[in-house]
Amino acid sequence: MRVDIGNALASVASPGVSRDALDQLDETVARAHERIERGRADDEFGYASLNLPERTDAAAIEDAVEPLTDAEAILTVGIGGSALGAATVSQALGGLSADGENADAAPLYVLDNVDPARVREILAEVPLDRTAVNVVSRSGTTAETLSNFLVVREAMEAAGVDWTERTVVTTGEEGPLRELADRHDMPALDVPEGVPGRFSALSAVGLVPAAIQGHDIEGLIEGGRAGADSLAGSLFESPAYAYGAVSYALDQRGASITAMMPYEERLEYFAEWFAQLWAESLGKDGLGQTPARALGATDQHSQLQLYRAGPRDKMVTLVRARERADREIPETDIDGLAYLGGSSLGELLDAEFEATEASLAAAGRPNVRIELDRLDAESVGELLYGMEAACILAGELYDIETFNQPAVEWGKRAARGLLGGGDFEEADAVAEKTELLVK
Amino acid sequence: MRVDIGNALASVASPGVSRDALDQLDETVARAHERIERGRADDEFGYASLNLPERTDAAAIEDAVEPLTDAEAILTVGIGGSALGAATVSQALGGLSADGENADAAPLYVLDNVDPARVREILAEVPLDRTAVNVVSRSGTTAETLSNFLVVREAMEAAGVDWTERTVVTTGEEGPLRELADRHDMPALDVPEGVPGRFSALSAVGLVPAAIQGHDIEGLIEGGRAGADSLAGSLFESPAYAYGAVSYALDQRGASITAMMPYEERLEYFAEWFAQLWAESLGKDGLGQTPARALGATDQHSQLQLYRAGPRDKMVTLVRARERADREIPETDIDGLAYLGGSSLGELLDAEFEATEASLAAAGRPNVRIELDRLDAESVGELLYGMEAACILAGELYDIETFNQPAVEWGKRAARGLLGGGDFEEADAVAEKTELLVK
Repeated sequence: MRVDIGNALASVASPGVSRDALDQLDETVARAHERIERGRADDEFGYASLNLPERTDAAAIEDAVEPLTDAEAILTVGIGGSALGAATVSQALGGLSADGENADAAPLYVLDNVDPARVREILAEVPLDRTAVNVVSRSGTTAETLSNFLVVREAMEAAGVDWTERTVVTTGEEGPLRELADRHDMPALDVPEGVPGRFSALSAVGLVPAAIQGHDIEGLIEGGRAGADSLAGSLFESPAYAYGAVSYALDQRGASITAMMPYEERLEYFAEWFAQLWAESLGKDGLGQTPARALGATDQHSQLQLYRAGPRDKMVTLVRARERADREIPETDIDGLAYLGGSSLGELLDAEFEATEASLAAAGRPNVRIELDRLDAESVGELLYGMEAACILAGELYDIETFNQPAVEWGKRAARGLLGGGDFEEADAVAEKTELLVK
Repeated sequence: MRVDIGNALASVASPGVSRDALDQLDETVARAHERIERGRADDEFGYASLNLPERTDAAAIEDAVEPLTDAEAILTVGIGGSALGAATVSQALGGLSADGENADAAPLYVLDNVDPARVREILAEVPLDRTAVNVVSRSGTTAETLSNFLVVREAMEAAGVDWTERTVVTTGEEGPLRELADRHDMPALDVPEGVPGRFSALSAVGLVPAAIQGHDIEGLIEGGRAGADSLAGSLFESPAYAYGAVSYALDQRGASITAMMPYEERLEYFAEWFAQLWAESLGKDGLGQTPARALGATDQHSQLQLYRAGPRDKMVTLVRARERADREIPETDIDGLAYLGGSSLGELLDAEFEATEASLAAAGRPNVRIELDRLDAESVGELLYGMEAACILAGELYDIETFNQPAVEWGKRAARGLLGGGDFEEADAVAEKTELLVK
């Protein structure tokens, strides 16, 4: 993973960071790195996330899912950190159902919402007797996940399928899912201790579906290890810290939005994963940089006008892999299009990448480039680890609590109360909505 | 379509708009409405978009696509406004390929990027001899669209398929695609005059795939008509103007980000479509409100921490349909989850909607509710029209040029230059990239 922060410099962009300011910031980065390393050495809550490449037992995951590797479809039932890492990994390496048929991998369906129409569609589509169900919830009580699980279980029972033979559970040491797994002798993997969901991609939480699909999960972990090896006490020597430090510095100078724009269809979910990582970790105490998900080249025709000519309140991150399978564009005699003929889609995509990057710089809009050699397990693992480390570094620089998410509890209590799951004052507040209806 | 702006009031939120300020703003809204009506009466460039429900000839579209209605798959080759409207309509009414099999509609694949791996995947998946190709480009020279079209055409030829019998073209009066359609006697529909791509959903541009799929395009247009009928010289009487005016007012007070959060999986693409509409129209001269795409309930577990506890720089729009197909949650004896049993996924989704809305209000974060009766053609048409009208009103309030997108030209010239399509100084700038590489 290589990070080029040249277009974030004050000599190029406004907001931009001067070379002097980066040197100054680097002293704080050095101290932050020491703090992070101490946290890792103690396996401290949150910092332990950066130890996953050492802790995650790929063989144990592969053993646990072995009985399910003949599955023709995989259903991940989870939400947030319990789904986004898995979806990201499976899409990047191939096999997300939304991307269509894949000769090499059973398609992964992600049941991460409680829209009844969608749940019904998915249950009608998958061959229930040849589907592996992967339920993920640390607590075992996540309302959406458990509701969907109950529905999936009932659908399987109605279809005469023994769900206990088709299910793998990833959960904490205790809770309803752990009890269910024990009672029915189902494969059960551990949500890693001390690792918030959004940091758990390089654990069973993110790797089980990929393992069922036969992907190279050791390679992903190896990539994470390479990411760990590249951490250093200077942003100039650590791509991950360069990214985190520059994002923070740009936010300090007004770039309150960070647009994550991979030029890879297979990294579209990565941008979603990044959005949770960045938003949920850094959105604290009135601080935080808002992630905006984008995709190149598509969003040049949607967002680029705003990025170039709107408020100077954003940074754009462009991500690409240097090696790719390609497809020639045939020669053509169509007037004005001859220049495309004989080129290739990959060359066009690369030209768009460089043109968009340069167009942002020409408009003085800060942007950062992230490059991978190719989209393989090692590179993807290194990318995910790198973003996690960048986020943790940014959390140190902001001086916020990176590893919790207290603001989501209010809504959980309100929803539970509305459904009759207890007496919560939050539910009463719902009834007191201020209304100004226009129709 | 009903819009509730109660939670955007200063009595609830900060930033928030006082009732007095709304009354004051309403005078400007009245003048803006007059300006818009004048523009419509003259079919003026851009304002003509709001005349589409009167102009769009559903029968002509259905006639043009009639030979293709036996298609088992549809390939829309287009980008930006030439793809997002179609994808939105087909997803909302059913039949986007990414959403899986649909008993009622041939799946729509959207080729809106030049990622060679993805293009190859799609071409390998669709039955080329039973696929309808829908090429959309006003100019007929959009690089990504024409490159993809050349590749698709070659794939069909290689498969022994007469592409001229399987293709419908939507383009301007002139240009390479119009010439191609004339030369090969292919069905050709008009990109409407005076309507920028992002405002063209209720024209052939957005409706052709839905027509092939057998959806109720008259209903969509009828919904647009209802939207037009609901425009009035006061934000208190026009849901669309309420939405546009409040979004503008909140941005003036610091809500520079607008998170569009439908609680409908079938409106996920709607949020993408909205993002182009809002960003590309309003991102001018250092102004503009940045759209962030979100989805309920999923993103409660991703973005809500930031929305509630991050900077006070955003508004959130929650969208739902009141009637929906539902799915019961089975009774359960699992400890602590009994409250879910006997409820339904729809009730849970509604509880999450109301809880999230209330949780934002409790944290003083401005939010707006948009409700539809159900997700049918009329409601979807009204929603799309309403957002377009809201956007045009906002453009009047910002005093910017709503209907162009000049900032995207630089990158187009640079990309063309890089591919040898002419001498453009922008391409030279690409080679002068400032580099600060960390690896």
